[in-house]
Amino acid sequence: MRIGIDAMGGDRAPVEEAKGALAARMLLGKEDRIVLIGREPAIREQLRHAADWRDFIEIRHAEQVILMDDPPVEALRTKLDSSITVMARMQKEGLIDACISAGNTGACVAAATMHLRRLRGVHRPGIAVVVPTLSGPVALCDVGANVDCRPQHLHQYGVMASVYANVVCGVQNPRVALLNIGAEDAKGNELVKRTRQLLKEDPGVRFVGNVESRDLFRGVCDVVVCEGFVGNVVLKLIEGMAEGVIRTMVEELTRSAPSQLDAIKETARSIMMKFDFNEYGGAPLLGVDGICIICHGASDYRGFKNAIGVAMDFSKHHVNERITQLLSHHQGLVNG
Amino acid sequence: MRIGIDAMGGDRAPVEEAKGALAARMLLGKEDRIVLIGREPAIREQLRHAADWRDFIEIRHAEQVILMDDPPVEALRTKLDSSITVMARMQKEGLIDACISAGNTGACVAAATMHLRRLRGVHRPGIAVVVPTLSGPVALCDVGANVDCRPQHLHQYGVMASVYANVVCGVQNPRVALLNIGAEDAKGNELVKRTRQLLKEDPGVRFVGNVESRDLFRGVCDVVVCEGFVGNVVLKLIEGMAEGVIRTMVEELTRSAPSQLDAIKETARSIMMKFDFNEYGGAPLLGVDGICIICHGASDYRGFKNAIGVAMDFSKHHVNERITQLLSHHQGLVNG
Repeated sequence: MRIGIDAMGGDRAPVEEAKGALAARMLLGKEDRIVLIGREPAIREQLRHAADWRDFIEIRHAEQVILMDDPPVEALRTKLDSSITVMARMQKEGLIDACISAGNTGACVAAATMHLRRLRGVHRPGIAVVVPTLSGPVALCDVGANVDCRPQHLHQYGVMASVYANVVCGVQNPRVALLNIGAEDAKGNELVKRTRQLLKEDPGVRFVGNVESRDLFRGVCDVVVCEGFVGNVVLKLIEGMAEGVIRTMVEELTRSAPSQLDAIKETARSIMMKFDFNEYGGAPLLGVDGICIICHGASDYRGFKNAIGVAMDFSKHHVNERITQLLSHHQGLVNG
Repeated sequence: MRIGIDAMGGDRAPVEEAKGALAARMLLGKEDRIVLIGREPAIREQLRHAADWRDFIEIRHAEQVILMDDPPVEALRTKLDSSITVMARMQKEGLIDACISAGNTGACVAAATMHLRRLRGVHRPGIAVVVPTLSGPVALCDVGANVDCRPQHLHQYGVMASVYANVVCGVQNPRVALLNIGAEDAKGNELVKRTRQLLKEDPGVRFVGNVESRDLFRGVCDVVVCEGFVGNVVLKLIEGMAEGVIRTMVEELTRSAPSQLDAIKETARSIMMKFDFNEYGGAPLLGVDGICIICHGASDYRGFKNAIGVAMDFSKHHVNERITQLLSHHQGLVNG
């Protein structure tokens, strides 16, 4: 398998991207290769201390960089030699089998959708993030690819994220819940009410009903379906809350129980780990005809290394084939 | 001032409602009265130990109760003698000056909108919650009154919540932010993009731009504007996260630093207090021509007592008059 990494995407690019590629060596088989895409001199500089990087890493030069605040569609049109654009084209042409980027999410989604196209039967791709919660991982889809969702999109996120949760979290027959503002059928806006109906009617989805955000952490479901705006807000709130609450607790305990500073810090560290996105690698853009993994902008080398692992699992377990199969089966049922 | 409380609304009704009314005595002036509305025998039973309750509490019997999962509009139509309906009618008729309920939020909003009507110039009422964060309170509006928001509604939430934050949090000229999924202008869905424009153009609002959910806790704004579905998700997620993270931390520390159990529990308790909705009392439904305070279903007596305080502040500081004034001033500007 040949895995492309946008070496210019993350906050510290290309430092963590190159380190992540080096660290991923242990995951690779004999035929596997990592292709770092971006400014060759800068990338080469990061690899120079690893004598044998050429054994499993290649560099593909791309001159331009799409910045975090570039408007995605315009950036893709004007920066034809950007790492994101070059990478998406390479996968389209079969030169790589997967794309990984910690750069501008909108541009990654647009590039993948444009070059790879959607899987047969998929209305809109969605990003599925495995959210680390204290009672285990939950796959949340969508977290920002699609801020103009229709019920059909959300229904398909339930189907696609089920396949993904099965592969990545190892859950047999994942429980799918719909994020809503109340447990009852009548609650919510039109979008969730109509989505609820579609999820209920699909025998291929193990739909367990609505879930409120306060219950996301109670182990009541494995997959949570929501529209991209809401999902993005949830994801970032979890990040901010975990950090804020734990930091405050450490500060106060440092005053009230100073003799236990080491135990307190160690505990805080281990809890923060449970919320650490780097541990889970990247989030796949589900529904495109290829493999596109999106990483947090602040990813360190572990984030990239684990994203490579996610891409390999995605391929090995034939996630896309299974999604297509499930969707066409459902389409068959609907058409009668 | 005469303050009505729906005695049948909360999870432990009428126990906490009655206790809260008794505890609020210290807040009341000589002429102030609390009217508990609901099943008289049950309410009377809760008051029987307080010899002097008749000095400041009255009971108004209402036979029916709207349940948490009753569909709001239908419930209002069929349960004409429910505590929520009776209370709203009483305020309309001038028998009370404020309504407080921990019951079915949808029914409270519908009853208040129907009987009290909207303030002049207001498109849609919205619920403003003072969210306790570690860097101080932030007023979030709307958190669930309106799940079908237009840009004009959100703009007015900014105006109304500014007045409220000024009164309740004592912030001069509150900083208003728009909850979005990125800091840049181009980010978000159509609703937030158009709202952003309206907030920018209103000289009566101190608009500070977009805020991401992860930054809600960094003291960058005093008011956050969002549509009701998103706001409700945010509110409940904060509640769930705070509880989950703190509980886990206490559990782990109890193992790793058992000698400090008291200090750890005390610290956890004091941090939980900062997130305790009971400390902040209820959330006003801004934009109705009256005073309607909505409490958390799990409110204890402190929640009701503090809601009574909120209602009194609301009246004393002429929140509604100031909202009408600001909106008509803005309308004048728009019309040229």
